[in-house]
Amino acid sequence: MNRSEGFPLKGYLAERKAVIDRALNGYLPGEGNDPPVLFEAVRYSLFAGGKRLRPILCLAAGEAVGGNSEALLPAACALELIHTYSLIHDDLPAMDNDDYRRGRLTSHKVFGEGIAILAGDALLTEAFRLLTRRELMPGIEPGRLLAVAGEIAEAAGGVGMVGGQALDVRSEGEQVDLETLHRIHRLKTGALIRVSLRAGAILAGASETELASLSDYGRQIGLAFQIADDILNVEGDRTSLGKETGSDAARGKVTFPALLGIDASRARAEALVIEALGSLASFGEKAEPLRAIARYITARDS
Amino acid sequence: MNRSEGFPLKGYLAERKAVIDRALNGYLPGEGNDPPVLFEAVRYSLFAGGKRLRPILCLAAGEAVGGNSEALLPAACALELIHTYSLIHDDLPAMDNDDYRRGRLTSHKVFGEGIAILAGDALLTEAFRLLTRRELMPGIEPGRLLAVAGEIAEAAGGVGMVGGQALDVRSEGEQVDLETLHRIHRLKTGALIRVSLRAGAILAGASETELASLSDYGRQIGLAFQIADDILNVEGDRTSLGKETGSDAARGKVTFPALLGIDASRARAEALVIEALGSLASFGEKAEPLRAIARYITARDS
Repeated sequence: MNRSEGFPLKGYLAERKAVIDRALNGYLPGEGNDPPVLFEAVRYSLFAGGKRLRPILCLAAGEAVGGNSEALLPAACALELIHTYSLIHDDLPAMDNDDYRRGRLTSHKVFGEGIAILAGDALLTEAFRLLTRRELMPGIEPGRLLAVAGEIAEAAGGVGMVGGQALDVRSEGEQVDLETLHRIHRLKTGALIRVSLRAGAILAGASETELASLSDYGRQIGLAFQIADDILNVEGDRTSLGKETGSDAARGKVTFPALLGIDASRARAEALVIEALGSLASFGEKAEPLRAIARYITARDS
Repeated sequence: MNRSEGFPLKGYLAERKAVIDRALNGYLPGEGNDPPVLFEAVRYSLFAGGKRLRPILCLAAGEAVGGNSEALLPAACALELIHTYSLIHDDLPAMDNDDYRRGRLTSHKVFGEGIAILAGDALLTEAFRLLTRRELMPGIEPGRLLAVAGEIAEAAGGVGMVGGQALDVRSEGEQVDLETLHRIHRLKTGALIRVSLRAGAILAGASETELASLSDYGRQIGLAFQIADDILNVEGDRTSLGKETGSDAARGKVTFPALLGIDASRARAEALVIEALGSLASFGEKAEPLRAIARYITARDS
C-alpha cells in the first residue's frame, strides 16, 4: 500500500530523526559522569535505533500551527526520554521479560537489572529537568512550559502510561475483552502519543480549536499505531521487527488480531487513519507531515 | 544527649507531619483509579510511617526566610514522593534486596516486583506533576516554580540521587575509601536533602545570601544524618529502626563506622551539626525549627 500522495515522508523522517538525535546527544549528561555505567546504559537504550515518533509528532504539531520547531526540541526530546525509560522498565524480567528489543539485547541483559532500573529512573527524571531548561527555549513563557510539563506528567504517570503498563501486567494470562484492551492501549501508548501532539501545539501557541483537533488526531493515530503493531507482531518477520514475532500470544497477551481477527483489525486501523486525516481537515499545507505520518502507520512493515 | 534548648521539636514535627500527610492524601490520585493495585501500592509506601524529614525541611526553610508555608506544601510533598519512590526501587531484589522497611514488608514483597517498580515510577512522575499545579500555589511565579522543578530534577536524577544509588550498587562488596563513601552519600541522600531546603527557600523568595546559607546547612545536616544512620545501623535495636541492625555490614556495604570507627563517626556527625548551626548564624528566631532539627540528628534513636 502506498498512499503517500507526494509528500517525501522518508526524507522528512530521516532529517527530523537526525535533528532529534543531535539534540538528545547534546542535552544528556555525558559518560564522563560517575558511575560511567549508568550513563552508558542511558545512552545504550536511547540510541538504539528508535524511530523518534513521539518527538517528530511534537515538532510536526508545532509546525502545523505555525510554530518554530527549534524552540520545541527540548520538549520533543523529553518525550523520547520518557518513551525510552518506559521501554527499559517494560522489558524487565518482572514485567515483559524481553531479552531483545530492536534486534539488540535489552538493558538489563547488558547492564544487569539494578542498573537498568536506575537508567530508566534517570531518563524519566532527566525528561522533567529538560522541560525546565528555559535557556534552551527562548521566547516560550514559563507558564506555558509548566502547563506542558504538567500534561506530560499526567500522560506518563499512574493515570496514564504507568497505569496502562500496570493494567497490562495484571492482565497477562487473563481473559481481556475489547473494552479493556482499548483501555490498556489508550493509557499505555495512546496517552504519550496524544500528549506529544498537545505539547508541540501548546508550546507553539495553538488556538483551542487547533489543540482539540490535534488531540483527536493524536488519539486516533495512537490507537491505529497500536493495532498496526499488534498485526506486525503476528505477521511481521523477525528481522524487520527486531524481536520474535508472535511473542505477544506466547506470553498470553491479548491483541487486537486475537480479539477481532486480522482482517477486521486491519480495517479498524485504516478507519482510524481516515478519521485522523479528517481531524486535520481544517489545517493547510503545514499539516502535510502529520497527514503523511498517519497514512504511513498502516503501510509500514516495522 | 538533649540539646533541644527549649524548642518544642517533638510537637512541631508531629504537627508538620500531620499537615503533610493530609496534603499528600489530597494531592494523590485515589484508589478508585485503575488498576486499584497500583494506587494501593503507591499509598502503602507513602503512608508507611515516614518522618517526612524532606518536606519538613522544605517548609522550615521557607519559614526561615519569612515565607508562607501553605504555598510551599505542593513542593514539600513532591520531595516526599521522590523520596518514597527511591526507597521502593532501592529495596528491590536487584538493588538492596530488603524484605522489610520501617518494620513492614517492602512493596515488592506485598505487590510483586512489577507493581513495585511501577509504583515507584508513578510516584516519581506524580512529583513533577505536583510541581506544575499552579492552582495549588497561588502567588508563586511560574518562572520560580520551573527553577525549583529543575533543581529538584537535577538533585534526584543521574547526576544526583539516582547516580548515588548506582554508585552504591556498583560498590557493594568492593573496597570503598572515605572519599568514595562521601561521594555516594552526597549524591544518594545529600542531594535531595539539600534541594529540599533550597526549594523552600527559593519559593519563599530567599535572597542569594540566605539561599547559600540554607544550602550549606542542607549539605551539613545531610551528611550528619547519613553518618547517624550508619551508627544506628550498627548500634540501633531492631524495634526502633524497623530492620535488621548490622544489615549494611552483612551486605558488604561500607559505612562511616566501618571506615572511621564509632567514636570518630559520632564526633564527625556532631561537628557537622555545629557547622550547620553556624550556617544559620545570621538567621533569627524563624530558623529555630531548623536549629532544633540539626541538634536532633545526633540525638535520635530511630
